[in-house]
Amino acid sequence: MNRCRVAVAQYALGHTIDTNLEQIADAVHNAVDEGAELVLLPELGHLPYFCIEEDAQYFSLAETIPGPASDHYAGLAREASIIVVATLFEKSHGDVYHNTAVVYDKDGSIAGTCRKMHIPNDPGYYEQFYFTEGTQGFHPIETSLGRIGVMICFDQWFPEAARSMTLNGAELLLYPSAIGFDPDDNDSEQIRQRNAWITIQKSHAIANGIPVMFSNRLGREMAKAETGMTTDFWGSSHIIGPFGEVLAKAPVDRPAVITADIDPEESGRVREIWPFLEMRRIGFYDQS
Amino acid sequence: MNRCRVAVAQYALGHTIDTNLEQIADAVHNAVDEGAELVLLPELGHLPYFCIEEDAQYFSLAETIPGPASDHYAGLAREASIIVVATLFEKSHGDVYHNTAVVYDKDGSIAGTCRKMHIPNDPGYYEQFYFTEGTQGFHPIETSLGRIGVMICFDQWFPEAARSMTLNGAELLLYPSAIGFDPDDNDSEQIRQRNAWITIQKSHAIANGIPVMFSNRLGREMAKAETGMTTDFWGSSHIIGPFGEVLAKAPVDRPAVITADIDPEESGRVREIWPFLEMRRIGFYDQS
Repeated sequence: MNRCRVAVAQYALGHTIDTNLEQIADAVHNAVDEGAELVLLPELGHLPYFCIEEDAQYFSLAETIPGPASDHYAGLAREASIIVVATLFEKSHGDVYHNTAVVYDKDGSIAGTCRKMHIPNDPGYYEQFYFTEGTQGFHPIETSLGRIGVMICFDQWFPEAARSMTLNGAELLLYPSAIGFDPDDNDSEQIRQRNAWITIQKSHAIANGIPVMFSNRLGREMAKAETGMTTDFWGSSHIIGPFGEVLAKAPVDRPAVITADIDPEESGRVREIWPFLEMRRIGFYDQS
Repeated sequence: MNRCRVAVAQYALGHTIDTNLEQIADAVHNAVDEGAELVLLPELGHLPYFCIEEDAQYFSLAETIPGPASDHYAGLAREASIIVVATLFEKSHGDVYHNTAVVYDKDGSIAGTCRKMHIPNDPGYYEQFYFTEGTQGFHPIETSLGRIGVMICFDQWFPEAARSMTLNGAELLLYPSAIGFDPDDNDSEQIRQRNAWITIQKSHAIANGIPVMFSNRLGREMAKAETGMTTDFWGSSHIIGPFGEVLAKAPVDRPAVITADIDPEESGRVREIWPFLEMRRIGFYDQS
């Protein structure tokens, strides 16, 4: 990986997919205007967060990869000549459904895909109703910019996932996300949850000497059904340097395209001073 | 583990071991006065941080366990009726040396020991000159208060160590530490390092739904030799709740005994809401 500028976009999404796609196009063009060579979009970034409820009608949103939505992202990447990392509701062979990140290279080609490995099933995040967990493990995707390790939202809570991706050669970790407050939680609980989310992702940078970027959805989304289920997605997208320092961050309550310069030599310097990867006691860790 | 109050002590140390031991006695009694049932001391907490230089004369500081220093700690624990977690420069059979944490139960008995698993060898932290790495892995120690998982300083940078200790049944993680600034580093580098250290330990709480406490030495220590090697130990001991929230913290520049109440039921609540331990994809993590 060479020194490069990367971007993260966050924006509010609704049930009108055409409007969502317009916002995405604007965000991608903003990223290009800022000099970025890669832009990370939020999880399921052109769809409503339908996992807020269990309703089989939403399976109609799933598409094959390639397919119409995927072709749209590919065209956007090619036209703007920027790497786009998007996640799609994937319908694979045999009606198996996945939450899948797709990396479109600057020429619009698909550099690779990875399916979400850890599928949550909390109230308002009924993802196990829709998605089968990935079986590909944690392997970076080779792009024209370098090897990037993409994991999806809930995957971020597992240090062993970030570790595996780094040991397998990733030079940059990316987490498209969809996470928010339960409006019924009080302020201190909301702050505790958001801080934990930011902290765990900083920790992946520190433990592995690697830059980390994570995107998030923004604003209120509600179930169509009368469950009253409501989530206030908390934005707060970040770009983090290889020793956990904040390079750029987005606000909790407004759309944003943030950018930062990633210097792979800085990862090397950090790993020389704090050689954690080198000093692991392989064979002593209990993993089950 | 029942609900209990725990304490962390930080203090400045020098080459006068009797003075160091007086400070430790004061700190332990302060912890008892605050109602604590367990007190964590800094790494090698009655010795100068001799690893600041490579000098074979320091091997004379090593002792067997049990031995005079160990008996002293045992007496302190018994007399004050508090669990004391100390680390010693251990001379084991056959002149093998370790950096070893010893857990003294309230009756002064040794509940268990664990040797440092990851041994750093940075400038000013020449620990590989003195210590052989432990081979016991990551197993909690049963005490009258509950099962506690003790790791030592540099072990804290390895998420797989905290994960292993938790999976093996620890109810509380403890890290006695000795870490400081290089006085030649500028302010922003010093802040970056200290923040990384605090963040990685918060992340173990978050990833594992477990409280974490860590102690540190305080103040300037210098090599006896004319290498000019100097470390400003940065204090900043913490007690962290099971979702990464700060329960208590000590200042960067003053002695302190901090306390907090640990509620094991809170760990259970966190793990029900954020069931990370339960949702690991065992078999998909690459560990070498």
